[in-house]
Amino acid sequence: MKYFLTFVFSCLILVKLLAQHTVEQWNRFEITLSHRSKANAFTDVHFKATFTHKDTSYTVTGFYDGNDTFRLRFMPTKTGVWQFVTQSNIAELNQKHGSFTCIDATASNKGMVKVSDGYAFRYANGQPFFPLGTTSYAWVHMDEAIQEQTLQTLQQTGFNKLRMGVFPKNYDLVKEEPSLFPYELKEVKKDAKGKEIKVWDYTKFNPAFFQHLEQRIEQLQKLGIEADLIIFHPYDKGRWGFDAMPMEANLRYVAYLTARLSAFRNIWWSLANEYDYVLSKSEADWHTLIKAVVQNDPYRHLCSIHGSTAHYFDYWIPEITHVSAQDEAPVMHWGAASIARNIYHKPVIYDEVGYEGNLKQRWGRYSGEEMNYLIWMGIIGGTYVTHGEAYLFKDQRDTIFWAKGGALKGTSWKRVGFLRKILEELNAPVEPADISRDYQTATNGKGVYLIYLGKAMANKWLFNLPHKNASFPRPTKGNRYKVEIIDTWEMSIASVPATFELADVHDYRLYDKDLKYVRLPLKPYLALRITEIHE
Amino acid sequence: MKYFLTFVFSCLILVKLLAQHTVEQWNRFEITLSHRSKANAFTDVHFKATFTHKDTSYTVTGFYDGNDTFRLRFMPTKTGVWQFVTQSNIAELNQKHGSFTCIDATASNKGMVKVSDGYAFRYANGQPFFPLGTTSYAWVHMDEAIQEQTLQTLQQTGFNKLRMGVFPKNYDLVKEEPSLFPYELKEVKKDAKGKEIKVWDYTKFNPAFFQHLEQRIEQLQKLGIEADLIIFHPYDKGRWGFDAMPMEANLRYVAYLTARLSAFRNIWWSLANEYDYVLSKSEADWHTLIKAVVQNDPYRHLCSIHGSTAHYFDYWIPEITHVSAQDEAPVMHWGAASIARNIYHKPVIYDEVGYEGNLKQRWGRYSGEEMNYLIWMGIIGGTYVTHGEAYLFKDQRDTIFWAKGGALKGTSWKRVGFLRKILEELNAPVEPADISRDYQTATNGKGVYLIYLGKAMANKWLFNLPHKNASFPRPTKGNRYKVEIIDTWEMSIASVPATFELADVHDYRLYDKDLKYVRLPLKPYLALRITEIHE
Repeated sequence: MKYFLTFVFSCLILVKLLAQHTVEQWNRFEITLSHRSKANAFTDVHFKATFTHKDTSYTVTGFYDGNDTFRLRFMPTKTGVWQFVTQSNIAELNQKHGSFTCIDATASNKGMVKVSDGYAFRYANGQPFFPLGTTSYAWVHMDEAIQEQTLQTLQQTGFNKLRMGVFPKNYDLVKEEPSLFPYELKEVKKDAKGKEIKVWDYTKFNPAFFQHLEQRIEQLQKLGIEADLIIFHPYDKGRWGFDAMPMEANLRYVAYLTARLSAFRNIWWSLANEYDYVLSKSEADWHTLIKAVVQNDPYRHLCSIHGSTAHYFDYWIPEITHVSAQDEAPVMHWGAASIARNIYHKPVIYDEVGYEGNLKQRWGRYSGEEMNYLIWMGIIGGTYVTHGEAYLFKDQRDTIFWAKGGALKGTSWKRVGFLRKILEELNAPVEPADISRDYQTATNGKGVYLIYLGKAMANKWLFNLPHKNASFPRPTKGNRYKVEIIDTWEMSIASVPATFELADVHDYRLYDKDLKYVRLPLKPYLALRITEIHE
Repeated sequence: MKYFLTFVFSCLILVKLLAQHTVEQWNRFEITLSHRSKANAFTDVHFKATFTHKDTSYTVTGFYDGNDTFRLRFMPTKTGVWQFVTQSNIAELNQKHGSFTCIDATASNKGMVKVSDGYAFRYANGQPFFPLGTTSYAWVHMDEAIQEQTLQTLQQTGFNKLRMGVFPKNYDLVKEEPSLFPYELKEVKKDAKGKEIKVWDYTKFNPAFFQHLEQRIEQLQKLGIEADLIIFHPYDKGRWGFDAMPMEANLRYVAYLTARLSAFRNIWWSLANEYDYVLSKSEADWHTLIKAVVQNDPYRHLCSIHGSTAHYFDYWIPEITHVSAQDEAPVMHWGAASIARNIYHKPVIYDEVGYEGNLKQRWGRYSGEEMNYLIWMGIIGGTYVTHGEAYLFKDQRDTIFWAKGGALKGTSWKRVGFLRKILEELNAPVEPADISRDYQTATNGKGVYLIYLGKAMANKWLFNLPHKNASFPRPTKGNRYKVEIIDTWEMSIASVPATFELADVHDYRLYDKDLKYVRLPLKPYLALRITEIHE
């Protein structure tokens, strides 16, 4: 018995050491140190560390997490041994050395998402990422029960990205007071009308606020959802003042946020929602803030900014990785989605095109069919459209998913999950095969086409493909294809019991050698998946 | 008799002096000096002049015009006295002083066209300029008779801009050998197959070539047509070599061209047609060449560059004044034209959206109706579309207007003149009243709306206007309007015998207080002109 107990004891020690000394690639390694600061630990303590691998090195900023605790988080980007050494103006935080081993990621950990193929995204492990997100601006500021419900809801969907704000939201239909605030309260004043005004100390963050936010981001990560985190927004209107802090405070906030969160692999930075409605900041301020985010993020997470309807930022600047536009015009009609893609030469996400819902406001009253249609119109143009839902069945206390989370009540969210499976099966991004000429045919460049028929209904479809195939090899005479009819609304896929074989090019198109057609159900919202047969 | 003769003689002298010493604003003042260069007068003689007005000054480059003649042209931008002094490395061209008086422009001289109102254009005299152009790439390289016919044709149209190239064109259906070349011929080689290859001296220009070009640009000016001059293009393919000169020669050519032509008030610079098809030049080369043009043009004429289909340049760079895109997708369907406008915050001209014609190629076979439709779709989106015609009735010797000029054979060109009158009556640019939400209503911000009904046919139209009115004051209850039905195809305007009066805003729109409607002819291509009544 004695030997056995010793063995168990040794194993426990071994496990403990492994836990400290190995980290999965793209997971977080954390350094925790104690120091009681006599000054303001948020502003007066500087704390960094340099992590070195045989091929590369990163310098990462730490942060004060309250209770005399300083933390520094690092996301290893390569497997192997990493050495680190800290630097600080405080002796207890300075020149701390250590090392850990970064091991292979496990299956559900695909790494952070980056731009790939010019106009698309891939996880660090190379797997394509098709952004199919939704929005819940202030879900982390709702009652605990609603937050939990939101996570349960998201788990049942196919969404892989969530637009969400750091700051609480004060807006028509969204009046909830949060329980946590990002800053320490200095005093509560009363204005001339007796209304309470909270005065914050912008030099002192509230760690509990950020710990809570991190917990939610971590939970999203476990669900395979990217957190498209909105750093500023205009929906405050003098209630808390976070939309109108001095620029010095904005920069301190960006530095603190990025120090805390850059090591989360599922973070995307969205500098703002409807930035042009934030009256306190100029276009130049936004450029300054974008640069600050990028400089503080050693891993260069995806980074963009979002304007009001049809208000496009200078998305061409190098700090911005992708377009995150609010505009429905590009996905309402054929051929328009690709225009922004052709202009920016970057991935385009129409992150707000209106919401499925029943609100009075015109941005919040699409049918589920329309929402699903807009998402498909984006895909077929080589871009992406973010879902949103705004149903209100009671009064303003009802949880509209768009801002509060809770339950989804609409019909389009399910179709997004269906679309996601189709895209993931393609295993490569799609783009228009014959740009500005054929508005309905997208190619993955590997012998698979998606043809979206939109709102048109037809009894049959004459098999034909464009001769152009984006920048990929063109289809040629003799190529053979199978066809599947996708009902994007009914979420069904039916195989057509025939094989189609291409004849010569005729007027920019290739038809089946016998001019065979596909019998279609006379219904809208159909798509065709056309796959080359190689056997 | 003696006194009378003296008087006549004095008058003649006076006239001669006036002719030398007064110049209309935006016309040209020219200095001519002689010098016999022992070296290469094109490359070894430097010749500039500084023109000084009480408020401003310009430094302008001269050029060698052959026959021991050096010229320097200046376009005075302000009325009043201008002093000048020359600088040169050649004594006979150096330190020549003089002055002239710039007088008011006469009615037909409206000055050069500049960007105004962010997204539109005005002549220097403040009058709005609505670009309604056509294209004839190589008309100045055709037989003299065809060139004259082209001018006569243009005189009968409403076109006010012409896209045309400096260099001749070698392309399918365009094989004519020009009689003039821009360079001195060094030798004629024969290749392995015995084909003649002209070898040019890129350090020696052919003044006759440029004099001829200038004559044509001057003639266009007299017709009120802006010359959108294409400096480079890819349609050479080894025949003359002008698409593949060394960069040093490109820059020398740009410097010579801009020295000769910047003082022409109707010049626009188009760095290239289908620049991305010019294989010899990189994106960086184009940036260099654009900068060279702008630096050599003291007046900052309008400047852009034109790509192949859906190939957008970095139009956001400050040297580029407006977008000159080739793309039909933005004007095929509702709401797409404005996207580029919203992105670039500059005027957008879709300078190539395909051609009315009967060619086999899909870019050259629109009906007249379709061409006219595309032009209107651009206008209603707050942008501009350039007309083009490509009819071929005989063989390749037929004069397709698109490249050769000659006669127009189509039907849409007339409708462009009709549209121009409508726009000029608006006296201000139009833009979408309710961006990304109402795709059919454009406002001039001064109480006039154009509503385009496109291909839809209806028996009636319920009078209503969007509440949003771009950045202009919104229409309100009690406003009264008259309505005219424009048949954009039949070129007729019919007044509706009724007055419409706005009720309250209802769901983002304002209707007539009695919900009155307008009876429409059941025809496509209608537009409505809705004008506020103030009496």
